[in-house]
Amino acid sequence: MMRILIKIEYVGSNYHGWQKQANLPTIQGILEKTLSNFLKQNITLFGCGRTDAKVHAKSQYAHFDCESSFDFSRLPLAINNMLPKDIMIVSARQVSNDFHARFSAKKKIYRYYIYNNIVRSPLLNEFSLHVPVKLDIKKMKKACKMFVGEHNFTAFCTKREFEDRFFNVRKIYSLKMKKRKNLICFEICGNGFLYNMVRIIIGTILDVGKNKIETKQIKKMFVSKNRCEAGETLPPHGLILYDVIY
Amino acid sequence: MMRILIKIEYVGSNYHGWQKQANLPTIQGILEKTLSNFLKQNITLFGCGRTDAKVHAKSQYAHFDCESSFDFSRLPLAINNMLPKDIMIVSARQVSNDFHARFSAKKKIYRYYIYNNIVRSPLLNEFSLHVPVKLDIKKMKKACKMFVGEHNFTAFCTKREFEDRFFNVRKIYSLKMKKRKNLICFEICGNGFLYNMVRIIIGTILDVGKNKIETKQIKKMFVSKNRCEAGETLPPHGLILYDVIY
Repeated sequence: MMRILIKIEYVGSNYHGWQKQANLPTIQGILEKTLSNFLKQNITLFGCGRTDAKVHAKSQYAHFDCESSFDFSRLPLAINNMLPKDIMIVSARQVSNDFHARFSAKKKIYRYYIYNNIVRSPLLNEFSLHVPVKLDIKKMKKACKMFVGEHNFTAFCTKREFEDRFFNVRKIYSLKMKKRKNLICFEICGNGFLYNMVRIIIGTILDVGKNKIETKQIKKMFVSKNRCEAGETLPPHGLILYDVIY
Repeated sequence: MMRILIKIEYVGSNYHGWQKQANLPTIQGILEKTLSNFLKQNITLFGCGRTDAKVHAKSQYAHFDCESSFDFSRLPLAINNMLPKDIMIVSARQVSNDFHARFSAKKKIYRYYIYNNIVRSPLLNEFSLHVPVKLDIKKMKKACKMFVGEHNFTAFCTKREFEDRFFNVRKIYSLKMKKRKNLICFEICGNGFLYNMVRIIIGTILDVGKNKIETKQIKKMFVSKNRCEAGETLPPHGLILYDVIY
């Protein structure tokens, strides 16, 4: 048995997210089917994390176990013409048998793009959220700093029934915001992210930019752990899983 | 009668180019229909230039004449929800009656994107040409310089029956090439471009990068005026009409 780690890039627009679902097109579903056909054995992928429907990935990682004498460094060239154009295996390599795409990840980096202009941009439509109103960029940059460090992010996640509320402490190493012409790029790096956490954090910063809330209120949200105080969950298409550090 | 100049942004992937064609979706066709409906009169657009099928535009310009008391600065917000998501009017303003979107243009700027990596990039697929082979970037930068200045570009255009071969002199003000990770961006600025000229110029520079031809051969092409000596016409989807200067 050997364990293979693959790096995957995809445009999420046409998929119901990463995780396999019966009768719905998902990234994991398509990759598992293609890999199973190619390697002539049942392949199960363990992703570094689940991306939601319409979320993109520049560098998603997943591992699988198999029996094979194939030189896996050649996997991308061998298999990519069997994959749809919007999903691509960028690289593949053998890892040790105790490596796990999810649990071995030290840091994850996400980006969220906002196109801030009265008129929408057809060229950036698929990869950014259109925000037509004027934003207070200075205040937003201040708000970014509030999230850096170790915090309880209960107010910044969507509760899922099967999850425990007690382990919602995560560490954010950096949250940078860059504006170039009308395009705002947020880059957030952390040791892990709760469900919808990036989209809610950026939604809260956006509310600061719209002068709906004050920067200092963010501190209180960490304490109150009240989801209702934070900003809305922004749409998925502005989000991209940018990189994972092992 | 008043003359209105509009600036348009579009993703060309789903269209048979700018120019109106019977029974085929084109940018001009869709814009004329929508403007005619909105202004309740027949509108004919005069574009700054024709973009081919699948070519994109960040800033295409076109003018039209009409009788109206409408405040045209409000046109984008009034009309954009009637347009498909991949075509957008960015701005509109009244110009003098002797202004012409095509003939008043002083400079045009095009960009061409090449994604240079063994594996394709799903995220950049729609807006760049995938080139999997190693390129000699230094030589390509040298080749770019050869095109700057006033030259006869007969070797670098596709002949169309109705056109005259004698007026193929154009001036290129600049041709810059920037590489950032695997993405190469060419930006070319000139006083006008012949049919397929940008795609053939970049195709020739690409041949230099592949060591198929030498930089010094480019000089001879200006003299020989022989289309067969220049590089191939690159695919349209890497090309974008970036800006027009009036």
